[in-house]
Amino acid sequence: MKKHNFYAGPSILPDFTIEETAKALVNFAGTGISLMSISHREKQFEAVVSETQQLFKELLDIPEGYSVVLLGGGASLQFAMVPMNLMVNKAFYLNTGVWASKALKEAKLFGEVMEVSSKDKNFNYIPKGYVIPSDADYAHITTNNTIYGTEIKTDISSPIPLVADMSSDIMSRPVDISKYSLIYGGAQKNLAPAGVTFVIIKNDILGKVSRPIPTMLNYQTHIAEGSMFNTPPCVPIFACLQTLKWLKQLGGLKVMNKMNVEKANMLYDEIDRNKMFKGTAEVEDRSIMNICFVMNEEYKELEKSFLELASEKGLLGLKGHRSVGGFRASTYNALPKESVIALIDAMKEFELKH
Amino acid sequence: MKKHNFYAGPSILPDFTIEETAKALVNFAGTGISLMSISHREKQFEAVVSETQQLFKELLDIPEGYSVVLLGGGASLQFAMVPMNLMVNKAFYLNTGVWASKALKEAKLFGEVMEVSSKDKNFNYIPKGYVIPSDADYAHITTNNTIYGTEIKTDISSPIPLVADMSSDIMSRPVDISKYSLIYGGAQKNLAPAGVTFVIIKNDILGKVSRPIPTMLNYQTHIAEGSMFNTPPCVPIFACLQTLKWLKQLGGLKVMNKMNVEKANMLYDEIDRNKMFKGTAEVEDRSIMNICFVMNEEYKELEKSFLELASEKGLLGLKGHRSVGGFRASTYNALPKESVIALIDAMKEFELKH
Repeated sequence: MKKHNFYAGPSILPDFTIEETAKALVNFAGTGISLMSISHREKQFEAVVSETQQLFKELLDIPEGYSVVLLGGGASLQFAMVPMNLMVNKAFYLNTGVWASKALKEAKLFGEVMEVSSKDKNFNYIPKGYVIPSDADYAHITTNNTIYGTEIKTDISSPIPLVADMSSDIMSRPVDISKYSLIYGGAQKNLAPAGVTFVIIKNDILGKVSRPIPTMLNYQTHIAEGSMFNTPPCVPIFACLQTLKWLKQLGGLKVMNKMNVEKANMLYDEIDRNKMFKGTAEVEDRSIMNICFVMNEEYKELEKSFLELASEKGLLGLKGHRSVGGFRASTYNALPKESVIALIDAMKEFELKH
Repeated sequence: MKKHNFYAGPSILPDFTIEETAKALVNFAGTGISLMSISHREKQFEAVVSETQQLFKELLDIPEGYSVVLLGGGASLQFAMVPMNLMVNKAFYLNTGVWASKALKEAKLFGEVMEVSSKDKNFNYIPKGYVIPSDADYAHITTNNTIYGTEIKTDISSPIPLVADMSSDIMSRPVDISKYSLIYGGAQKNLAPAGVTFVIIKNDILGKVSRPIPTMLNYQTHIAEGSMFNTPPCVPIFACLQTLKWLKQLGGLKVMNKMNVEKANMLYDEIDRNKMFKGTAEVEDRSIMNICFVMNEEYKELEKSFLELASEKGLLGLKGHRSVGGFRASTYNALPKESVIALIDAMKEFELKH
């Protein structure tokens, strides 16, 4: 049976990425040996790293003066690396969910944190009308909130260096990189299997803190060494490169975004139409990557039953995060429209049955 | 042509590991989806993590009171995490090479470091007769020095908690874990592709420092969360599990060690016999994992020529590290005896030719 992969992360990747990576595991770049077993210092693998960085720059139209680094440790390690490298005295954090809260918690170890939050309504909206203090060292936002299905869909303006966790919406739309000083994310949503983290850094924001920074936690180390200071996570990076090639082949981020918006709108339309379901996020802040919905009160006891139906139809990973409950359909770049249609069909069938 | 993989890392892995991982990339555990695309919270993947930890315990005969954690970031990140988590005032470092020096450099950010070194002879031996100070917080050793081909082949006794970087000889021999308080290593030599780092920790050594530790850099986080605090590097962990299964199937570490010693002795015997080559490490400290040798002075200009011959015969990764020069044959667990024989044959052929 055809599987429809709605996991929130690790999540669906293009067939191209899966096939090319599986092939490289057996014979990498015609070397006759596995991608897992070749030195990262061989020219064939160095080319993988530099092509990956190059395609990041090309697809996101990254201006001069920025570096792209590829690290291990996950976005969670960035929660500490960002303040360690950037915070002199204080920082501003827009707290829009569990992950933003975790980032903020680490920042408090390094200085004062000013917070604007949407916690009052279980993070179901993005705060508006807040003012980013101009005397803070940087402002931190989480552009897409995987758990709550909210998203900052346009690039905001900030009077101070803007740092964004884009783990779950990177490459889903064109981004005006010049508005950001640092963008990071775990690759395991739109790009690669878990194990590699990208960081896009405006070089001139570094070197301003006086605290001693361990070598591996210093962005300058990885910029200077081209992400090869130590052995990088080779397989995840290779897979990431395949996804970037796929994106380019498809026409880039404008095309991707159009497809994503179409998929998301189809599903939101059904959620709004179907009498059994309702969305959990404020309409204007709805994510195009993670679509959260629950059953209306009168059908609440049928949630388990809908998940069973979904499972029977090969619709995987639809259970909502415990913080929100209900359902979450992650509609990342690689999810085909037919999977969204299969989910909508299941929702309609369930409505007819009850 | 059959390839003989002598890379120092990432390096040769068992065919079983490569085949099973390539298969899982297409269809993981019968789920119908890729190992790269399934949530790490699904029971099939949680089983991979717990089985990996269990096999670590079984193969190394790890006593009660120790935890096994699997992290991203590489052993280089451990260079900082070890002192961050363990150093109250001072530590002892046995400096036996580039990697030990890097570990020591990070420790200096956190306190006083006492050093005993073999730098005087370009790290071609393991220091003897040194005394580990009983008033330091821990002693740090690097059991195998990949670049120099030296190895601490027996478990030393320490009056204070002993910390060992075993990146390049883990699982090559049985280890008396009770003599160590912490063992760490990048997995990309004997276990897995790059991207996962193992840490074996005696639980009671933690919690003694007062400095604030970022959540991701605190061993207690990962012990408490069973290595699932954040999304772990799923593909490298899966591959690691396959290697551990292969090791168990083979008969465990005693059998593995016997095979490793046999391979290493065959090659050292040829190095000592062949008039063109000589070993670089002190005989008693010779590594069974990385075998370093150069050409005798009178043949020095033929080094490039030997590498060319090796390359023609499918012998890969034999160029020595620039710190030592000459040649390095890494004879990790998965390297078959036939590859060692192929190298020896090439050395003999080269001797006859000149």
